Amino acid sequence: MNDAANLTATLRANVGAEPESGIIQIFNYGRHREGLIPLWVGEGDLPTPGFICDAAYDSLKAGETFYTYQRGLPELRQALVDYHDTLYGRAFDVENFFVTGSGMQAIMNAVQCVAGTGDEIIVPSPAWPNYPAAMRINGARPVEVPMNFANGKWVFDIDRLFGALTPNTKAIFVNSPSNPLGTVLSQDELIAVRDFARKHGIWLISDEVYARYYYPEGAVGSARAPSILDICDVEEQVMCINTFSKNWAMTGWRVGWMIAPRAIGQVIENLVQYNTSGVPAFNQRACHTAITQGESFVNDQVARALEGRELVCNALAGSGRFRFHKPQGAFYLFFQIDGIDDTVAAARKIIDDVAVGLAPGTAFGPGGEQFFRLCFARSKDSLEEAMGRLTGWVEKHA
Amino acid sequence: MNDAANLTATLRANVGAEPESGIIQIFNYGRHREGLIPLWVGEGDLPTPGFICDAAYDSLKAGETFYTYQRGLPELRQALVDYHDTLYGRAFDVENFFVTGSGMQAIMNAVQCVAGTGDEIIVPSPAWPNYPAAMRINGARPVEVPMNFANGKWVFDIDRLFGALTPNTKAIFVNSPSNPLGTVLSQDELIAVRDFARKHGIWLISDEVYARYYYPEGAVGSARAPSILDICDVEEQVMCINTFSKNWAMTGWRVGWMIAPRAIGQVIENLVQYNTSGVPAFNQRACHTAITQGESFVNDQVARALEGRELVCNALAGSGRFRFHKPQGAFYLFFQIDGIDDTVAAARKIIDDVAVGLAPGTAFGPGGEQFFRLCFARSKDSLEEAMGRLTGWVEKHA
Repeated sequence: MNDAANLTATLRANVGAEPESGIIQIFNYGRHREGLIPLWVGEGDLPTPGFICDAAYDSLKAGETFYTYQRGLPELRQALVDYHDTLYGRAFDVENFFVTGSGMQAIMNAVQCVAGTGDEIIVPSPAWPNYPAAMRINGARPVEVPMNFANGKWVFDIDRLFGALTPNTKAIFVNSPSNPLGTVLSQDELIAVRDFARKHGIWLISDEVYARYYYPEGAVGSARAPSILDICDVEEQVMCINTFSKNWAMTGWRVGWMIAPRAIGQVIENLVQYNTSGVPAFNQRACHTAITQGESFVNDQVARALEGRELVCNALAGSGRFRFHKPQGAFYLFFQIDGIDDTVAAARKIIDDVAVGLAPGTAFGPGGEQFFRLCFARSKDSLEEAMGRLTGWVEKHA
Repeated sequence: MNDAANLTATLRANVGAEPESGIIQIFNYGRHREGLIPLWVGEGDLPTPGFICDAAYDSLKAGETFYTYQRGLPELRQALVDYHDTLYGRAFDVENFFVTGSGMQAIMNAVQCVAGTGDEIIVPSPAWPNYPAAMRINGARPVEVPMNFANGKWVFDIDRLFGALTPNTKAIFVNSPSNPLGTVLSQDELIAVRDFARKHGIWLISDEVYARYYYPEGAVGSARAPSILDICDVEEQVMCINTFSKNWAMTGWRVGWMIAPRAIGQVIENLVQYNTSGVPAFNQRACHTAITQGESFVNDQVARALEGRELVCNALAGSGRFRFHKPQGAFYLFFQIDGIDDTVAAARKIIDDVAVGLAPGTAFGPGGEQFFRLCFARSKDSLEEAMGRLTGWVEKHA
């Protein structure tokens, strides 16, 4: 009746043309490769702890299977307040907290709030591809500003970033610690971004999902990275994105949260209602247990990632064929391999030849094309094996 | 720094102005009223059966807490194929099935696919308010076409509906059995809509979440209502929306599904990825158990709703002060009360005076303002009590 091309032509142009995530592309390419060590996606190798899972089951047994609060369970929102009070050393209010169906949904809702057709959002690049995708789906234009990799360091080029402002700019997006770069913005850099946003009356959207994975030189063990929550009023034009996924090994649960001005609380509640109509109450109970009883698990996770960082950085530095900025946060290494330009082809060949799953840097936008991303939130054994395979492959092929 | 009005002014106009659901408004007004019988929202009073909950827990215990397939677990998609093969008497293919984070998300994704700024979607009205809301959030214009209530019957006014076509129309939306009307489109009516959509090259989006709740005169016990799946090719410009919420008492789980042409499969997968990045695998395991082992539970649910329908229709008909079209499907009664025009004020007064929660018809768009909606998917006892209170209140106040 309709052939495929005709059918696609009847879709919204921006949505029909939206590419598949380059991370998912390589994942689908290699997911069935036998013996593969998967370092391509942003999750660790540990399942959610049993005591967290049990809380979901207890809730199910208690019959909490009905519609629930669109802003999140009151108990979970209060637990989020307590967590932030402790971690950021200031007093928060429950009315600024919104539970969302993943950090991704928090990002989508933030974009839906501020930018549609004809609008622009500034994003430093390379970045997680889902940011610009969420913008394009809303008809907005992501203005991806490439940062510089020079002398083994990524430079947060504030002048270049701010130079992207136009009359259509509605927001500036930051992600520190950065996926995929592993860089962390200093408080001074965050202040500069905040002042820029204030001066121009645009929104500052800050994705801080890796806040706890922070490895500053000489201050290992710091509880969290610098945050816009240190320097902004929660009632100003600011939204802060977070998730249960990374800290508590809950990637599969799809629960996140947002901190935003109470003045737009009803708008965010409406967006939750009209996108998915809320997050399962029983899954929220598990999140409540995670955030109130999971602190030592988080510390273990961060310590494990730090060990992973040392292992992969040492292994690749030892080879002499890799270039990278040693990550100060998050749990990714973003690296170049001498002599390799086509990172998509190489990522496939590395899967075929030695069964290591890397994400090609092309997935992360302008400035990342020559890089690969690996996730080091994994067991020492699997990382050692993967690094051995990878350095061996490079010696042979690159 | 910013006051609330200034802050709201910096949001996208269509999103900032989007009203709160009128159903949620009344729900929030009365949720803490002691002794309230809640007939306002679209869910029954039974929790999810234990054997379904257990499947989620088994999955959690097995460690299925990681990212999963964006189109849904292969086993669940296959189970959806088998379910539809049986229910619709034709052979479906797994590539046309997409698991979504609620029926709501399926609707949002369908709208995101086809309509943005400057586009229009035709919707018969009264309708579930989340349809036009999802359209407006995408910048599209819902063209809500009021149907007629005359001589105690709702008439599906095809000429008026088709008269709403403009060069900007991208889709026509239908919902049969209808929330809130309880009406069911005949196969001839569905064919007329299909032919109209085909002729004009627009999408037909059909929300069939109440398909199993079907009470045709003289054919009680029919397994399901007429469907676009009876008369359309799944590879044409058609999307069919469904959910686990209503059939298996899983409203709180937020899992739905969509049937769509395989040609747009990658687009739908991308939208899942960029909206919420998938549905928890362990919740999908529960859905798999529901759809493969829950058929007798569905039959019990439908039988119970049918009893509820008889009870509320008889109670209100007996009073002589109510006017309604006896529902042929879904589990709502949409009714007028003689002498009451301001249904929002009356719904609040009914909560205050006799603790019965009704949704005012204003929530459902043009043509519904003079009506109330109640949900009869509840125990006989609570419905009897509620109808006694309501008829008593009407005798006193209206």
